[in-house]
Amino acid sequence: MLIRLGYDIRFDIAAPVPMIALLTVHSSRRHALQEPDRLRVEPAVDIEEYSDLFGNIGVRFVAPQGSVRLHNTTSIEDSGEPDPYCPNAREVPVEDLPPEVLRYLMGSRFCEVDLLSPAAIETFGGAPRGWARVQAICDWVHAKVTFSYPQARSTRTALDVFTERVGVCRDFQHLAITLCRCLNIPARYAAGYLGDIGVPPSPSPMDFSAWFEAYLEGRWWTFDARHNMPRIGRVLLATGLDATDVAITTSFGGSKLTQFHVVTDEIV
Amino acid sequence: MLIRLGYDIRFDIAAPVPMIALLTVHSSRRHALQEPDRLRVEPAVDIEEYSDLFGNIGVRFVAPQGSVRLHNTTSIEDSGEPDPYCPNAREVPVEDLPPEVLRYLMGSRFCEVDLLSPAAIETFGGAPRGWARVQAICDWVHAKVTFSYPQARSTRTALDVFTERVGVCRDFQHLAITLCRCLNIPARYAAGYLGDIGVPPSPSPMDFSAWFEAYLEGRWWTFDARHNMPRIGRVLLATGLDATDVAITTSFGGSKLTQFHVVTDEIV
Amino acid sequence: MLIRLGYDIRFDIAAPVPMIALLTVHSSRRHALQEPDRLRVEPAVDIEEYSDLFGNIGVRFVAPQGSVRLHNTTSIEDSGEPDPYCPNAREVPVEDLPPEVLRYLMGSRFCEVDLLSPAAIETFGGAPRGWARVQAICDWVHAKVTFSYPQARSTRTALDVFTERVGVCRDFQHLAITLCRCLNIPARYAAGYLGDIGVPPSPSPMDFSAWFEAYLEGRWWTFDARHNMPRIGRVLLATGLDATDVAITTSFGGSKLTQFHVVTDEIV
Amino acid sequence: MLIRLGYDIRFDIAAPVPMIALLTVHSSRRHALQEPDRLRVEPAVDIEEYSDLFGNIGVRFVAPQGSVRLHNTTSIEDSGEPDPYCPNAREVPVEDLPPEVLRYLMGSRFCEVDLLSPAAIETFGGAPRGWARVQAICDWVHAKVTFSYPQARSTRTALDVFTERVGVCRDFQHLAITLCRCLNIPARYAAGYLGDIGVPPSPSPMDFSAWFEAYLEGRWWTFDARHNMPRIGRVLLATGLDATDVAITTSFGGSKLTQFHVVTDEIV
Repeated sequence: MLIRLGYDIRFDIAAPVPMIALLTVHSSRRHALQEPDRLRVEPAVDIEEYSDLFGNIGVRFVAPQGSVRLHNTTSIEDSGEPDPYCPNAREVPVEDLPPEVLRYLMGSRFCEVDLLSPAAIETFGGAPRGWARVQAICDWVHAKVTFSYPQARSTRTALDVFTERVGVCRDFQHLAITLCRCLNIPARYAAGYLGDIGVPPSPSPMDFSAWFEAYLEGRWWTFDARHNMPRIGRVLLATGLDATDVAITTSFGGSKLTQFHVVTDEIV
Repeated sequence: MLIRLGYDIRFDIAAPVPMIALLTVHSSRRHALQEPDRLRVEPAVDIEEYSDLFGNIGVRFVAPQGSVRLHNTTSIEDSGEPDPYCPNAREVPVEDLPPEVLRYLMGSRFCEVDLLSPAAIETFGGAPRGWARVQAICDWVHAKVTFSYPQARSTRTALDVFTERVGVCRDFQHLAITLCRCLNIPARYAAGYLGDIGVPPSPSPMDFSAWFEAYLEGRWWTFDARHNMPRIGRVLLATGLDATDVAITTSFGGSKLTQFHVVTDEIV
Repeated sequence: MLIRLGYDIRFDIAAPVPMIALLTVHSSRRHALQEPDRLRVEPAVDIEEYSDLFGNIGVRFVAPQGSVRLHNTTSIEDSGEPDPYCPNAREVPVEDLPPEVLRYLMGSRFCEVDLLSPAAIETFGGAPRGWARVQAICDWVHAKVTFSYPQARSTRTALDVFTERVGVCRDFQHLAITLCRCLNIPARYAAGYLGDIGVPPSPSPMDFSAWFEAYLEGRWWTFDARHNMPRIGRVLLATGLDATDVAITTSFGGSKLTQFHVVTDEIV
Repeated sequence: MLIRLGYDIRFDIAAPVPMIALLTVHSSRRHALQEPDRLRVEPAVDIEEYSDLFGNIGVRFVAPQGSVRLHNTTSIEDSGEPDPYCPNAREVPVEDLPPEVLRYLMGSRFCEVDLLSPAAIETFGGAPRGWARVQAICDWVHAKVTFSYPQARSTRTALDVFTERVGVCRDFQHLAITLCRCLNIPARYAAGYLGDIGVPPSPSPMDFSAWFEAYLEGRWWTFDARHNMPRIGRVLLATGLDATDVAITTSFGGSKLTQFHVVTDEIV
């Protein structure tokens, strides 16, 4: 299956401001790209590509004053298969985890592992271990939290989601990630493209999506507490501890988003 | 100057529990060690050494049931000089920062950069840039926050320090780190040994200490919002985004600390 | 001046639910009503009127299953004068405050006096005392906080407003109230009608409004950190510690708001 | 049974500061006093007694510069019976509650009813209604929260207790009160004397104690999530929404507590 990918994001910039963007398809999927995947900035500016702490490909540039456009389109080959499903995948004891995975057991800006541990253990401590436990967490978050675009906010943490029971993609994943970590299951945040392939078209405009990965049986697996069903066509951009590490764009100074347009769909 | 280093930490363990420890002198200082620096666990268990996401040397083992002791002593050559002081060190514009430093501009578990930015900019936005601005932040935190061991708590964030105005080492550094990041100055948390060398002896029992590093003029510099004066004899163990990354020990299950004894002093 | 007042609020109710409403013009203004001011519930139910802890007139009833409508219209005589302005009004020392005013110096659900005191004292401790200090607080809140209907949320506290710098009416007042209390100036929350009399028409649909009252020179005075200018035509419904005490309606169980329509304008 | 009551509290005062104290036995118990119950301030100052919003007897004075002592001793006749126990007491539907009780269903500074409602309903929504439900809440809080004097802090809210699972008297009661309110059971905070009558002597120095009252079957009943057993010899000082309303002393400016000594025991 071939999937078309693209974005067209515009800012009004009052004074030149450094920006970073995580808009490049993740290295694990680059081989499948059918066309170059290169952030274009208009007006043209110098662009520096770098690899961040988590292995994501970041792009840095100084956005000039005025209207600034970030855009690109590309296409990628995809298996067309839904997210892998492996109900027998076992938890890896902490002592056997690869060392680089240990950090994904701990707290981060939006994931207060320390604060949610008692509730997590009360609710999921008795659940069957392994895949079933992560699934139980996803089921719970999916059932308890109501999706609401108008109530999105960038400062909402997992504890806030636990108390407010409302949120967008990222909020569902933050709560699920935190609950996993509380139970000593490594979990990390993932952002990428996810179109309406194999599901009824969503009424909302296209956007990037967030999901998460849990570490079981020696590898990372995709979970998605917001949709809570295997999906076709995820294209990973970046992973990290939480949304802090995986912001699509970050401005180190003032900038005003004026357009945000994302495309991802099957090329028939 | 030769500095003696050591610790003797004991736990009561009800059931075998995986632990990690960051008790090894940082690689940047290993060359100066005069004796081996090796965590000893009693009773003897298998120990695995690894390098974490931030370049720290971690040690992992499964603590067996019963009384468990972590200890070591070693010695290190030290310049005997106080922390470098460089009032002319300039801020590096975000666009010129080494990419690996960018992460230290963002939020983390105990450093809510998003929430404290308005107050940080109001208070320090007009301060002279560079070293003087970091120093202004240290002066402010040092003046506003009261040190109190009895009021230590492991869940206190920078925003909590800002509102409660009380804390221990780590709390002073978390607030200062956060304020630096709010002003686009990279800052990271540091933990290590710091004895009473060149200062009057402290009435408290010896402990590990926390300080922070700010990135100016192309390198990391030591700052310490708690003591707020150049000190002699810091021996770095680990750095990270905040205290989450640099916990001396982390247990992935129940453990009860029964003794915590640290030694660091000049060998005359 | 004669002002027309009214509301038409509808709920979908899945199962009978007790509700209270604070929709009755405050006793201090009842004498000026030109027509009865009586909450009508459709379908008709038993209604009980009571006076709450703060002297507001509450109404209690059990909303039956189905569509429920709360409505009324009335009219009131108004001076047509803007909010009183008394720049010489002095602060009353705590020891001379009427005892019933003391509670308005302390914390409440949305007003964390304890947490904001240091920042309040740093920012306003040096301001001239009395009316000018309350005005300085209003000016600051008005300048620092951005009004945004889409970012309303019912759980936002004064500390959240201080960090997020965004909100609706109630958020502006909660922050200003808290800052006043931090400086030992009694302040309470007020809700009522406020039309666009003497000001350009607002683009938003009419709503109830919130303002606050500060106690100076022996009486309560109206302040409004959101509009921050004297206004004509406020009609008070209720006062309390914060928005908790003055919710227009409170359901003790599930209810779904389906319409919210408020009218207040000058009858020419 | 005759119970001796007394306190001896001392402050260092740097500059004259207004204070209020809630140290007078509650009006519901005044008839049983065997001796006058009068706060003595040394050095002598003018004292004003008043009744607060919740019917408590407050005392206000200006503490002069220097060392200030608040003290009194008195004695009271007590039934010698443990707290009433009435397992059949039913919940009162919200529509039948006395209006003055409604406020005790809502949030307050330390009781975030809005934030804890989902967790409360998940945990206790299925419990038998009435006394048994309040008891289930007390059992849960008593089992989940660890008592720790060293970890006391004046800013800890019910949500903090829920996440941190540690606290002192007031923290246990704040969490229990909040959970009751979430389930539409009115609950209020109570402070008073509670000695070791009929129980083994406590190792801690005597202090005032906090408990709470829940409204069932037409009256307020004593519950105590910290001790979670019927006790003999409670002498009520004050009730309120939470600890904000019932602080033993409140200083409106700087004061330093230097001694805190409480006596309450049976006179044999």
